[in-house]
Amino acid sequence: MEDNAITMAGAITDAKGNRSLRPSQQANKDSNLHVKEIRPDSIVLRGYKCQICGVAAAHEIICLPGSGYGDTEKDFCVAAAITRDIEGLTIVETRRPSDARDEEEGWDVRKAGNITQTFLIFEDVFVPNDRVFMCDEAKYTGRLLMTFTSIYSAAIGACVAGQGDIMIGAAINMARANGLSMKPFQDKLVQMAINNEITFGLGLGAMMRGKKQASGLFVPDALLAHANKTQVAKLPYETKVIAQDISGGIAETGCFPSYQDIQSPAYGKQILAALTAGADGETRARAARLVEWLTVGGGIPGCMHGGGSPDGARLVVKAMTKWEDYAAEARRIAGITSELADSAPAKK
Amino acid sequence: MEDNAITMAGAITDAKGNRSLRPSQQANKDSNLHVKEIRPDSIVLRGYKCQICGVAAAHEIICLPGSGYGDTEKDFCVAAAITRDIEGLTIVETRRPSDARDEEEGWDVRKAGNITQTFLIFEDVFVPNDRVFMCDEAKYTGRLLMTFTSIYSAAIGACVAGQGDIMIGAAINMARANGLSMKPFQDKLVQMAINNEITFGLGLGAMMRGKKQASGLFVPDALLAHANKTQVAKLPYETKVIAQDISGGIAETGCFPSYQDIQSPAYGKQILAALTAGADGETRARAARLVEWLTVGGGIPGCMHGGGSPDGARLVVKAMTKWEDYAAEARRIAGITSELADSAPAKK
Amino acid sequence: MEDNAITMAGAITDAKGNRSLRPSQQANKDSNLHVKEIRPDSIVLRGYKCQICGVAAAHEIICLPGSGYGDTEKDFCVAAAITRDIEGLTIVETRRPSDARDEEEGWDVRKAGNITQTFLIFEDVFVPNDRVFMCDEAKYTGRLLMTFTSIYSAAIGACVAGQGDIMIGAAINMARANGLSMKPFQDKLVQMAINNEITFGLGLGAMMRGKKQASGLFVPDALLAHANKTQVAKLPYETKVIAQDISGGIAETGCFPSYQDIQSPAYGKQILAALTAGADGETRARAARLVEWLTVGGGIPGCMHGGGSPDGARLVVKAMTKWEDYAAEARRIAGITSELADSAPAKK
Amino acid sequence: MEDNAITMAGAITDAKGNRSLRPSQQANKDSNLHVKEIRPDSIVLRGYKCQICGVAAAHEIICLPGSGYGDTEKDFCVAAAITRDIEGLTIVETRRPSDARDEEEGWDVRKAGNITQTFLIFEDVFVPNDRVFMCDEAKYTGRLLMTFTSIYSAAIGACVAGQGDIMIGAAINMARANGLSMKPFQDKLVQMAINNEITFGLGLGAMMRGKKQASGLFVPDALLAHANKTQVAKLPYETKVIAQDISGGIAETGCFPSYQDIQSPAYGKQILAALTAGADGETRARAARLVEWLTVGGGIPGCMHGGGSPDGARLVVKAMTKWEDYAAEARRIAGITSELADSAPAKK
Repeated sequence: MEDNAITMAGAITDAKGNRSLRPSQQANKDSNLHVKEIRPDSIVLRGYKCQICGVAAAHEIICLPGSGYGDTEKDFCVAAAITRDIEGLTIVETRRPSDARDEEEGWDVRKAGNITQTFLIFEDVFVPNDRVFMCDEAKYTGRLLMTFTSIYSAAIGACVAGQGDIMIGAAINMARANGLSMKPFQDKLVQMAINNEITFGLGLGAMMRGKKQASGLFVPDALLAHANKTQVAKLPYETKVIAQDISGGIAETGCFPSYQDIQSPAYGKQILAALTAGADGETRARAARLVEWLTVGGGIPGCMHGGGSPDGARLVVKAMTKWEDYAAEARRIAGITSELADSAPAKK
Repeated sequence: MEDNAITMAGAITDAKGNRSLRPSQQANKDSNLHVKEIRPDSIVLRGYKCQICGVAAAHEIICLPGSGYGDTEKDFCVAAAITRDIEGLTIVETRRPSDARDEEEGWDVRKAGNITQTFLIFEDVFVPNDRVFMCDEAKYTGRLLMTFTSIYSAAIGACVAGQGDIMIGAAINMARANGLSMKPFQDKLVQMAINNEITFGLGLGAMMRGKKQASGLFVPDALLAHANKTQVAKLPYETKVIAQDISGGIAETGCFPSYQDIQSPAYGKQILAALTAGADGETRARAARLVEWLTVGGGIPGCMHGGGSPDGARLVVKAMTKWEDYAAEARRIAGITSELADSAPAKK
Repeated sequence: MEDNAITMAGAITDAKGNRSLRPSQQANKDSNLHVKEIRPDSIVLRGYKCQICGVAAAHEIICLPGSGYGDTEKDFCVAAAITRDIEGLTIVETRRPSDARDEEEGWDVRKAGNITQTFLIFEDVFVPNDRVFMCDEAKYTGRLLMTFTSIYSAAIGACVAGQGDIMIGAAINMARANGLSMKPFQDKLVQMAINNEITFGLGLGAMMRGKKQASGLFVPDALLAHANKTQVAKLPYETKVIAQDISGGIAETGCFPSYQDIQSPAYGKQILAALTAGADGETRARAARLVEWLTVGGGIPGCMHGGGSPDGARLVVKAMTKWEDYAAEARRIAGITSELADSAPAKK
Repeated sequence: MEDNAITMAGAITDAKGNRSLRPSQQANKDSNLHVKEIRPDSIVLRGYKCQICGVAAAHEIICLPGSGYGDTEKDFCVAAAITRDIEGLTIVETRRPSDARDEEEGWDVRKAGNITQTFLIFEDVFVPNDRVFMCDEAKYTGRLLMTFTSIYSAAIGACVAGQGDIMIGAAINMARANGLSMKPFQDKLVQMAINNEITFGLGLGAMMRGKKQASGLFVPDALLAHANKTQVAKLPYETKVIAQDISGGIAETGCFPSYQDIQSPAYGKQILAALTAGADGETRARAARLVEWLTVGGGIPGCMHGGGSPDGARLVVKAMTKWEDYAAEARRIAGITSELADSAPAKK
């Protein structure tokens, strides 16, 4: 894929339906993508995938099971590659925050890449066998998910760090556009940088402790990677809040004159004059709109639930932490020789 | 005003221009609202006020100086009441985050009050003397600002607490719409409640320590009120992040199918089916859109810079804290009898 | 009591025994203070109270039930006043962090009040009826506890704020003793002050919303008071960490030359010279030892579990927050008309 | 050194004297270790090093300059190895928090390694040339310090993570000794684990981005390493507070019956009974004392200022972050074509 520059979108998240029920228990089986039929040369897929990023720019959509499953859920254990224009697939692009403003004409328009998310509706999609990677094999789904989330959670640290670096730059620009130097904000800027370096460096640490699998695939350390995911779901928010703090109300509130108003012969010049500070009105408007876009609008990275929720990551941290080893070592240091184990559930 | 149910918008924030220069030093004197002329029966106002909330719903606009000023800035020391339709005033309503989506037809539309912010352009607005409260009196501007920010910072705690309570409710609804109970999220919900009670209760504390002025006006304690402002600029963000954490990706990313797509005869039914979980698709869509609106979109309260920036509030905390008293008391407890004072600036 | 300047120690915390069992289920009934016998003119008390503050300085010890109890625990529902020297009571004063150093001779000694905690061993203590306030009345114990914790949690905010003010002063003194001014630390000092004002002001807010009971006792609002307790268990720690940050390693590590070493004819003068910085060695030593005492040693206020644990306070916040009202209001704003209730427990 | 199992103590921190003055400006030149005389075959050292860890267990003391210096400070640019028993060196071991209690007889005693810190007084110490690594060479001191702090700040992450793992185990033991299971504390324990993994993994990330120098020495990436130091000065405190939260007041307050009292024939048995909960009294006492030792007493790792202060680390983050690159990239994305640079200092 890499050699041929084929771009892929990972379609993992199912519509799921009622979160208290397993896929096979849902009122509507389509709530999760599933194998409707196994034919000699192909399989037939039905169901919904939701909030899938990057489909618009992808050659191939890689469908994967949305969770680890037991044997009762075999129909939902499917991994396959499909092309974007495959018959039976409907792609519904979602709206984004403030999308209508981004797409207005004028210099208010942001040309650079917006996020894109889609709902995928599979209605009897035929996938030939040579594009099917998994079918029915429940026992591999847990490991597949762990491999994916480990890679994702290690790599996403660099992703949000890069976005955070732009937030630093955007905040510096706003300080200057306001007529100030970056100096009075230096402590805050350093805190933004530290936040970015944490998710970047902790992801690297997860990679450093990673292991090569028999297949040749290199998988980061699950514990460190998922610890990183909990920070990815936390630190970028703090970084954004600092960007808003530095930038002032004009960038924080998301309230800004429309491009049309600024073009008005009657009062557009005055709006531009009102926007003028340490830089001309247009420059300051562009600087403010970028901070807004990064912190209120379309630039939000989905750092909370993308690649799995932080609570899911905490479950992995819980599963991989050697609680009893730590307790035993603490007993040794404390000179405790008797047993100490969990007692019965607490009193009612 | 209260007896006659006359609503007011407070127009405090000037366009300001270059933040490193005083109003009188700006290239464009209109960067700050000022008195252009004093006539026997009236004054003439010129300049720009920015990001003024509630103008659309106000009978009267109360203009106030945007900062405390010295005698060089007398022209900018003006307080006056004007009606919204006064001649020479242009009101430019700003756009809001995701406003185009809010205003679409259908059940996606939010009928309840959106925020509104305006830019006010004063071009030779005549204000009769009986509507002028201050003109030229620089010496009162600092006290006026402190009175305003003390009242605002005490009261805003309850405002954001109320918004936070709705965030709690919206998050509970999303958990249920996802098919879950609120129980696994109880710790997070309690944290949201604590955040809300802090800003509410600390504001009350500021009021309790407040004093009645000779005029009859009751003004909260400045130190506690401004300490509260620093939390108002911090805790609601944490509350929002928790709301996104509980609600899931559908509410967090701000990416959601458009109302038009959901109405589509070709695939609308399927989108609704994909949205169905612990509740029908429309209910879950409405629940998700409210969380999005509260945490990404138009419901953002401007809690960072509204009523003054948190750094401004910290300056008040700094000014009102008895540093030397605390240092002296610590010396007494430590048994230190020699002097201890700030030394010269640090080595280069 | 106030008129006669009689000091009291509140003895609430029982030894408790196994936290998963009720008092009546403990292997050793003495794990909780209880009424061993009811006689015509008196009651007989047995059992252990732990970590009771202020006994050494109290005229009267006020025993209260350590929890709210049901009817099965009637023996443990006892409130009574006893004098410190009552027959059958053994008071075991505990050690404190670094107590031996505090009590050394020399200017290293801290004369000012140290904390004091005791274990109280009741072995058939006879209390005459006119000193018994409650006996057997389980139904009042819950309310008694809530009244106590509400008053405590509101008032403790001011207590730790006062300690925090001393930490501010101690940190300023250390900065100066190090040869620096407080200026480079101003942001950190302001954060310390904000932390202090939060617990102080939120406690005031709880009082402001309090209500006078029929007895004449004024009880703060339970929700705000217990929200405050969660901050009392959090913010003083942050304040201490900042004090250590400002003060430098000499105050942070708790490692300091002994007073005896400093008196040594062979090398004491050199140690004092090594301690000399922006102030003479003795002054700096005293300043450093106060920061250490406040942040590592005997000055630690027990702000975590004193007056009940933060988790207990969270339970009160949970019990008193109107979750369903918030959810209903959020449904109204979102335009949701269908029911939304907690579903069954999550899938296994 | 490694081949011969020779242990070393790094003596970096000078007594410093007044922090606003350079070493050469100090009233007492001994405030910083310096070369008093250069002889043909040796150098003569004088001055004070403070708070040096591990001297008691070291074969060799490695003296290094305590800061980066310019040419005016040549006398202080000295690196040398000395043996612990060298003539002219006085080693003053400091006291530690609660040291007297640790050293009492009985099972209250902690046998495991306590921290050790010393003041080193150099009075004309002769060091032969083959043990001198640097003398007078100011230009290398900055680089030496950066190399040291980069290695230290990367490695210290694993150090405090290991201590944090023991805090996890100690807290689990206390929960069980209290009669509870670890389950109700699972979220808090996971947070402790995450804190530990962050400093561990971020340190690994710094190593992964490190570079081999011409000498063969491998030096971690300075930016990531110093970002880690800021977390090492923050997260262990949070971990300790959680340990206290889980463990209850008996471990938090540092107030505990003395070993002598527990041995008392008159009331020792009762104290042990009062300590009995989910485990026998001695076991619970040992468990509680370990938590106290780790969070209040001698086990405190000096994570704040060890290896340099967090503010020093922030200066490195500041120096190594590409602020202008980020600002330029943000301008490109925002479509800003005009210049935007820092303006003059803010208005007075």
